Amino acid sequence: MQTLQNDTFLRALMHEPTDYTPVWMMRQAGRYLPEYKATRKDAGSFMDLCRNAQFATDVTLQPLDRYPLLDAAILFSDILTVPDAMGLGLSFEAGEGPRFERTLQHEADIKQLRVPDMADLQYVFNAVSSIRNALDGQVPLIGFSGSPWTLATYMVEGKGGTDFLTIKKMAYARPDLLHHILEITAQTVIEYLNAQIEAGAQTVMIFDSWGGALSDRAYITFSLQYMKKIIASLIKTADGRKVPCVMFTKGGALWLEAQAEAGADALGLDWTVDIGQARARVGKTMALQGNLDPAVLLSTPEAIEKEVEMILASYGKGSGHVFNLGHGITQWTPPDNASAFLAAVRKHSQQYHM
Amino acid sequence: MQTLQNDTFLRALMHEPTDYTPVWMMRQAGRYLPEYKATRKDAGSFMDLCRNAQFATDVTLQPLDRYPLLDAAILFSDILTVPDAMGLGLSFEAGEGPRFERTLQHEADIKQLRVPDMADLQYVFNAVSSIRNALDGQVPLIGFSGSPWTLATYMVEGKGGTDFLTIKKMAYARPDLLHHILEITAQTVIEYLNAQIEAGAQTVMIFDSWGGALSDRAYITFSLQYMKKIIASLIKTADGRKVPCVMFTKGGALWLEAQAEAGADALGLDWTVDIGQARARVGKTMALQGNLDPAVLLSTPEAIEKEVEMILASYGKGSGHVFNLGHGITQWTPPDNASAFLAAVRKHSQQYHM
Repeated sequence: MQTLQNDTFLRALMHEPTDYTPVWMMRQAGRYLPEYKATRKDAGSFMDLCRNAQFATDVTLQPLDRYPLLDAAILFSDILTVPDAMGLGLSFEAGEGPRFERTLQHEADIKQLRVPDMADLQYVFNAVSSIRNALDGQVPLIGFSGSPWTLATYMVEGKGGTDFLTIKKMAYARPDLLHHILEITAQTVIEYLNAQIEAGAQTVMIFDSWGGALSDRAYITFSLQYMKKIIASLIKTADGRKVPCVMFTKGGALWLEAQAEAGADALGLDWTVDIGQARARVGKTMALQGNLDPAVLLSTPEAIEKEVEMILASYGKGSGHVFNLGHGITQWTPPDNASAFLAAVRKHSQQYHM
Repeated sequence: MQTLQNDTFLRALMHEPTDYTPVWMMRQAGRYLPEYKATRKDAGSFMDLCRNAQFATDVTLQPLDRYPLLDAAILFSDILTVPDAMGLGLSFEAGEGPRFERTLQHEADIKQLRVPDMADLQYVFNAVSSIRNALDGQVPLIGFSGSPWTLATYMVEGKGGTDFLTIKKMAYARPDLLHHILEITAQTVIEYLNAQIEAGAQTVMIFDSWGGALSDRAYITFSLQYMKKIIASLIKTADGRKVPCVMFTKGGALWLEAQAEAGADALGLDWTVDIGQARARVGKTMALQGNLDPAVLLSTPEAIEKEVEMILASYGKGSGHVFNLGHGITQWTPPDNASAFLAAVRKHSQQYHM
């Protein structure tokens, strides 16, 4: 294994001292970059890109080549690889987002759900190994999965971004069926993330993109408890290092106190919460990752710098902050604005680490 | 004026003692009711229905006829009457939601924005008078408006439910332009709500449907401060009664403490927040309205009753709670489930008012 040249990100996640606030951007490899679009064109469909280890490696490294101030790389993939491996038939229609051919709505279909053979996800683990090798110790590599609740929303609804009425109806009328889906999915995510760790992931992140759609009580029951179970089952690296885990419930900042008890090393924050207030609520051992509104990157370098300064000041002195956006960077972001963002974080964060 | 036969709702909003927890449902006149669909068919388009005082009166009273346990009526209208009167050209395309012909994105267009002549909204005030008259004192009538931020999202983006990237780009790159839109819109909303009060509205509600899309700081700057201004400018009724004001920022439960300082009598809550925790956060003089997830009404009468009981128990003893859904009732709700909901609130709430 290569020596890690920049471990600032890992140290911040473990709440150890760093010289500055490390930073990466959710969806940093993506459509806002012309070099990504070029590779995507060569690869074919989005899933063709994900399934090809060389293409996935190329796009993962593109933002690192362009932005030397990035402190982490994240596996290029999609959370929906898991329900796809579970046999639901994933496709991406242009401008429509992901769709599944089959949905889990009938008891008979739900009862047939099984943890898939990890061989069907080998392409993801191959991508992890390939990226880790290509990084050559430059920065740590993040692996990831969707949360069971979030994956279940796609499996039950058949698509994303809905009102979640079908799955919520199940949650209230037939909670036993939904718990069955979540239980199988949680077991799958455990195997999936551990295989990513074996392949070389140095941090794992759980994306609970739709947890914020739930009520307070339903969030604990249908989302948080399954993430907690996953985190408790994560393995260490082959050389015995702990792999930090970041848990991110978008729209979930109301429930930070409960999240802080789930065993993660860090919590992702969307932009709705003041990060200083979040820090006060979660206690001293929990790291926080976030939380600039990605829409700010559409404005001007001056406005970006000002917002970055306010977030850094709100977090205040000391370790435990990984700067990030509060959600994925949008495809409309001018690449130079992303650069201004990263420069502002580096420039203004050092004073908080003296 | 008629004597009010049931003032439970108004008393709860003013945090006065009541015999039970009053209840109404956001969008209680709507597509889940076959009688609404019949009237809508007679009326023509959605806006044709809103513009006709008799039709608007008929549909406002339909849920009260069906559900004798409702404690309030709400004007049948739409928040987009205001930008429509401001000249932006509202239309509703089938299955697409509202669209505006013109948007406010260029400085020249923004600078031309004016407070519209309230005569162009006279059809709304006529509906208020007609409904108030038809209610004949049965229950109080709620008038309403969108918040300036929420109305501005439609005016700038041209439609709803987006990522709000255009208006947010303006918020960060040209805050002066956005503040101009919000200032004009706030003045318009003041005149609009006061004219509804003059026409007979006994409570007003401000719907900040999209405030939850903002960051902590941006919410205060671009949404809350304008609602505060509106609330401070509301008039009393002709006979000198205070008109209670309910302020509702969907997705805004993180910011309840700031909302509690804005001058409203009650805060609307979506389903994401535990109402007992919300009560502890806002202090003793603020009433709360909410907060069952409307998706629960798609399940079973038993599940509905259980969820209602948990919300009542979480709020606890004493006055100041108006039961409601955490958002509008969905069109897929079986009408009998709405009935089960209302019955459960009445049945289980009395013990908390002894």
